[in-house]
Amino acid sequence: MKTYDIAVIPGDGIGLEVMPEALRVLERVADICGFVLKFHNYDWNCETWLRTGQMMPNDGINQLSQSDSILLGAVGFPSVPDHISLWGLLIPIRREFHQYVNLRPVRLLPGIPCPLANKKPGDIDFWIVRENCEGEYSQIGGVFGEGTPSEGAMQTAVFTRYGTDRILRYAFDYARKLGRPHVTSATKSNGLFHSMPYWDSRFEAIGKEYPDIRIDQYHIDILAARFVMSPERFDVVVGSNLFGDILSDLGPGITGTIAVAPSANINPERTYPSMFEPVHGSAPDIAGRFIANPVGQIWAAAMMLEHLGEVEAANLVMKAIEKALDDPLAPRTPDMGGKAGTRELGNAITKKI
Amino acid sequence: MKTYDIAVIPGDGIGLEVMPEALRVLERVADICGFVLKFHNYDWNCETWLRTGQMMPNDGINQLSQSDSILLGAVGFPSVPDHISLWGLLIPIRREFHQYVNLRPVRLLPGIPCPLANKKPGDIDFWIVRENCEGEYSQIGGVFGEGTPSEGAMQTAVFTRYGTDRILRYAFDYARKLGRPHVTSATKSNGLFHSMPYWDSRFEAIGKEYPDIRIDQYHIDILAARFVMSPERFDVVVGSNLFGDILSDLGPGITGTIAVAPSANINPERTYPSMFEPVHGSAPDIAGRFIANPVGQIWAAAMMLEHLGEVEAANLVMKAIEKALDDPLAPRTPDMGGKAGTRELGNAITKKI
Ligand SMILES: CC(C)[C@H](C(=O)O)[C@@H](O)C(=O)O
Ligand SMILES: CC(C)[C@H](C(=O)O)[C@@H](O)C(=O)O
Repeated sequence: MKTYDIAVIPGDGIGLEVMPEALRVLERVADICGFVLKFHNYDWNCETWLRTGQMMPNDGINQLSQSDSILLGAVGFPSVPDHISLWGLLIPIRREFHQYVNLRPVRLLPGIPCPLANKKPGDIDFWIVRENCEGEYSQIGGVFGEGTPSEGAMQTAVFTRYGTDRILRYAFDYARKLGRPHVTSATKSNGLFHSMPYWDSRFEAIGKEYPDIRIDQYHIDILAARFVMSPERFDVVVGSNLFGDILSDLGPGITGTIAVAPSANINPERTYPSMFEPVHGSAPDIAGRFIANPVGQIWAAAMMLEHLGEVEAANLVMKAIEKALDDPLAPRTPDMGGKAGTRELGNAITKKI
Repeated sequence: MKTYDIAVIPGDGIGLEVMPEALRVLERVADICGFVLKFHNYDWNCETWLRTGQMMPNDGINQLSQSDSILLGAVGFPSVPDHISLWGLLIPIRREFHQYVNLRPVRLLPGIPCPLANKKPGDIDFWIVRENCEGEYSQIGGVFGEGTPSEGAMQTAVFTRYGTDRILRYAFDYARKLGRPHVTSATKSNGLFHSMPYWDSRFEAIGKEYPDIRIDQYHIDILAARFVMSPERFDVVVGSNLFGDILSDLGPGITGTIAVAPSANINPERTYPSMFEPVHGSAPDIAGRFIANPVGQIWAAAMMLEHLGEVEAANLVMKAIEKALDDPLAPRTPDMGGKAGTRELGNAITKKI
């Protein structure tokens, strides 16, 4: 039987609570579809850092490289500065494994109240393709003049042609694959004097390779506003690491799915494992109460199945999620206006498969 | 009689169409309140650049420095790259005149359809305080390896303690002045390794000077989502140049007021003139048809009056705007779902004074 090795990193906070639900769903669907998932658990998180000063062991990346895919919960803990925890685990995994695509759906689902007026499922349905390895997220820079009145900090964003072109091409290819030949680029070339005019010039150049695909671009400020005012107009939106990050939280924001949306960190060449995680963070404010919504983690697992080539299994999971959300009698977690716990909603989804 | 010299820069596109409406309102209210506004027109715009290669003359800043305030329309034209036009006019004015505060209201107004579900005027009402002179908007950087496969671009953000502390203090002072002792900081210290942890440390330090003011902070991605999901929770939101820019378009986005919202570029010490402009841009897609909504420009004029100390006049203008918006019989421009032109709506507001 086909067997996949899955590295499982529950992480911190509610990551530890939602992960078991995703694993149960995965086991169920693997049984049905006739393949085997071998889960390898890695307990790397902020507690590891507090104990050892490292988020993962020195050979962590090497350990993970043996797996077919990585399923991540959430990382972050109030007593550990975010830039320490994230640059010690999430970001190195994205970079070392060349997961240069961060792919996130923005989709209004049945049964989830939409914060926008007069929208129904189907009205909002597009994809964010985010650059995931370079750009604004850089370690170049530092603090100067520390402790003096002329103190300050610098941070340098780096956009390589190599890194820019490959994410743009992915976005165009993805639009083709979806049969929705329209790509929107997020820019800010009126304010960011060097990086964004460069990004625009590459968008124009790569766009010419895809004459069948309509292109447009918006400055990130007005683009964010348009997500709210006219989300119907988007098909595939491509953005830099930072802009893609903002848009792919705002997208779930406008569809009420912050707790529900998944995030795929993809190495398209499959030279390295890809990583799948929910969009939400570790949510220290509700951690420990087992009331977190497990749908984001389960949907992330569905994206993982699709990436592994188990398309039928992925579809079964997606249908089960939609059925559970659409069923007025199904349990709902507090973020959805209900009183159910993580486990109950997870069970309900498992049963719908 | 008290006399103010106002530099008027209509700029490009619809800037040229909405400015006359604001000037008419200003003249009217000056008559009523008993002061004189002397308008000095500057026709600097993208056409100037196409003709002369400069957005404004060499001594442009010096010419403007004679005025008590600057009223700006909008800058930008399809045939001129945005980074050329903006860095040739808007951005140097902000910087040379140390207009380090960009202050923008986010307010749900009567008569304006809200894109969010179940909101009524009063529900959304807060302020964005944006750093306006440094940060991510910098000319440090460039393109390397041009034309080679290793080509790329770099862009360096600079956050000085001087620049960071003064905008943070302004935000705290402003929250006190409003009697709404709560300041929210926009950060992204989990991704931007140097600049944002520094910003956070200054926010914490300055926050300690204001023990009466409650503070909180969100990463920009989730903050953008919260603008949509729970805008009621905000009072004063402070952000860097880029984050403030994004949030202060998103704010008008969630209140349906992109065409309506104003933006004040303030030099709090009053050593230099401050500048007032609408949030919207030059809108080349509708320019020339005289259908642009003049409210943003008129509201900007009201903020100018307030800054000049003409508080009664400012209030009269604000009331006239609100009355016109609230009056179902008043003319409405297409963005508001009506068929009226710029002039008609401008007239209606002037008459309500
Ligand atoms: C036109 C552009 C440079 C400007 C900015 O980003 O500052 C505009 O978006 C604004 O917010 O005033
Ligand atoms: C946690 C943080 C570093 C991360 C990011 O900004 O990439 C998160 O917001 C995300 O979008 O996956």
